[in-house]
Amino acid sequence: MMEISAASIGESLHDIDTPALILDLDAFERNCERLRQALAGTPINIRPHAKSHKCPEIARRQIAMGAVGICCQKVSEAQAFIEAGIQDVLISNQVVGTKKIERLCTLAKRARVSVCVDHLDNARALHDAAVAAGIRLPVLLEIDVGAHRCGVAPGAPALALAQAIKGLAGLQFKGLQAYHGGAQHLRTHDERRLAITEAVRLTRETRDLLSEHGIVCEKIAGAGTGSFLLEASSKLYSELQVGSYVFMDVDYARNDQTGSGMPEFEHSLFVLTTVMSLSGVTHAVVDAGLKASSVDSGLPVIAQRPGVHYVRASDEHGVLRIDSTIAEPLRLGQKLRLIPGHCDPTVNLYDELVALRGEHVEALWPISARGALL
Amino acid sequence: MMEISAASIGESLHDIDTPALILDLDAFERNCERLRQALAGTPINIRPHAKSHKCPEIARRQIAMGAVGICCQKVSEAQAFIEAGIQDVLISNQVVGTKKIERLCTLAKRARVSVCVDHLDNARALHDAAVAAGIRLPVLLEIDVGAHRCGVAPGAPALALAQAIKGLAGLQFKGLQAYHGGAQHLRTHDERRLAITEAVRLTRETRDLLSEHGIVCEKIAGAGTGSFLLEASSKLYSELQVGSYVFMDVDYARNDQTGSGMPEFEHSLFVLTTVMSLSGVTHAVVDAGLKASSVDSGLPVIAQRPGVHYVRASDEHGVLRIDSTIAEPLRLGQKLRLIPGHCDPTVNLYDELVALRGEHVEALWPISARGALL
Repeated sequence: MMEISAASIGESLHDIDTPALILDLDAFERNCERLRQALAGTPINIRPHAKSHKCPEIARRQIAMGAVGICCQKVSEAQAFIEAGIQDVLISNQVVGTKKIERLCTLAKRARVSVCVDHLDNARALHDAAVAAGIRLPVLLEIDVGAHRCGVAPGAPALALAQAIKGLAGLQFKGLQAYHGGAQHLRTHDERRLAITEAVRLTRETRDLLSEHGIVCEKIAGAGTGSFLLEASSKLYSELQVGSYVFMDVDYARNDQTGSGMPEFEHSLFVLTTVMSLSGVTHAVVDAGLKASSVDSGLPVIAQRPGVHYVRASDEHGVLRIDSTIAEPLRLGQKLRLIPGHCDPTVNLYDELVALRGEHVEALWPISARGALL
Repeated sequence: MMEISAASIGESLHDIDTPALILDLDAFERNCERLRQALAGTPINIRPHAKSHKCPEIARRQIAMGAVGICCQKVSEAQAFIEAGIQDVLISNQVVGTKKIERLCTLAKRARVSVCVDHLDNARALHDAAVAAGIRLPVLLEIDVGAHRCGVAPGAPALALAQAIKGLAGLQFKGLQAYHGGAQHLRTHDERRLAITEAVRLTRETRDLLSEHGIVCEKIAGAGTGSFLLEASSKLYSELQVGSYVFMDVDYARNDQTGSGMPEFEHSLFVLTTVMSLSGVTHAVVDAGLKASSVDSGLPVIAQRPGVHYVRASDEHGVLRIDSTIAEPLRLGQKLRLIPGHCDPTVNLYDELVALRGEHVEALWPISARGALL
């Protein structure tokens, strides 16, 4: 492990070594406040997804602003947050495999930990481990409401699994996980509204069916940054799992918000990079390639430099095309800020977040769950 | 930082926690031997690129098999290898920025460290720092031989920069860096041959021009896994910078090798993953998404399971489509091996490489330069 840090507290933006992952604290705090305001006065809980930031310092701030806890996707991710003092973690995912389930049960003795289930074999394995550990593990039954990834089919198959879970003494049935991942990046509000309307319909029918059979859903959870106001207005969901709103990214910024009522979340997360090669006036290379800014959802975009375009990423290089009409030419060594194409996997490339107040480094926050895959 | 390891030495493949980065040691050793044989009897040096593996244990094995040292792309990457005992590192890249150059000069006092240059301002900054540190820094002048990324133009611009470097007492001019990145993944041998023929022509002309002006190129370096036999046969290149040959990946396997004489490098690197959700017989989800296997050059491919297709990656999930004609259905909890789309950024997601001999864990190798961006 490298012990080199990109920055020191108090340092100016221009002295930060690159590539570095930087956070505009003012924009970040405005994003947090806008989410709070958007849901103020509703009975809906916020449980932000920590897969986006992997940073206990951010989780603590989210909880201080009213979040009931966090979501994680991996047991090792949950462990990093619990070791940092977070007390309530939902693993919004299936946990399959003996070693993972054992670690899950160990964590569940230290903090409030719950998990999702979508298969009877997995429910039985969780039950066995929970009984062996002397605990009852709270579970949400995940249903597929349109994302076609994990989740049992809504309706009768969900009822059958819920009944089975109710029969397993090591498990505590808490309700439904009904996240529509595919809806988050539909580009128009109408498309997102149609997708979530259908997700809500399937979830409501499943809840009602379970209720008819005496199974109460204490909690119905889901939603993301792209759609959460729709789930919030359903009067069905009780817990929202927004993640990217703290940072935003190029992919989320492509969503057309016309008619959505969505708060104006700002880009707060950037990759600071340096112009490391410059030939002619229209071609330059920066030191942040695809190991510094994940390109799975598209290339990064250069912030506040009209006429300068990030056009190609290789492992350690980003190629810039510069319009010949640009007012001020780039200089070798110049620092630029990139808006990542996709914030979650970009954060996962760094061990440290450099938190800036204006132009100065206010804090260095460990990304403690970076690489937490297990 | 997580202290959880995916595996223990002696454990069976089936007990490894997932997702895990696993190395088939037999295939890896055959790849190393095939490279050695391909260049045996030639005067050409091998300086493997460590950006691919970021693993000192692999670098030590490459050097034990005759490599003269390694390449790195970043100063912090070089530092990780030097701290692990590697004595000769070429940073095959520009190093721009005060902090980086200071770290470079510090390293150059501990080991043989050289670096590439493509701009006069950068040459002067390197000279100033070298003089202040009391060293002479060996440099290669990088020329653009077709990749259109870094590098000064061949011919007169290269001569002008070489002459300037010769006038800077802190620098020691060693020769040319002439790597054609863009040629590595041209799909047919004829396309690669044409591209490298042109790169060789430009490099030879530049070397001859420098020679006419009394500047000797002691070293001419470049090449990658996709093209190295072409550079080797040029009688011009003295040092080859192959990297991916140790692992191979889906992208390299797409190259058509007809007529190339390329050794049959095998896939030795895999992401071990678990079936974590299973609904119906044609749809399953594994626990390795794009944070476990980089998708910048395409999706991973499932090894040795015909009829099972990795069709979609999200952050923590991989969706599989299963042909209905498949002989043996998948089971929940089953382990599968993925061949990464692109090995370099995939390795960069892990802290540890699980080295397997057959079905058993022989060693756990730290990926010490993982995340070394600075």
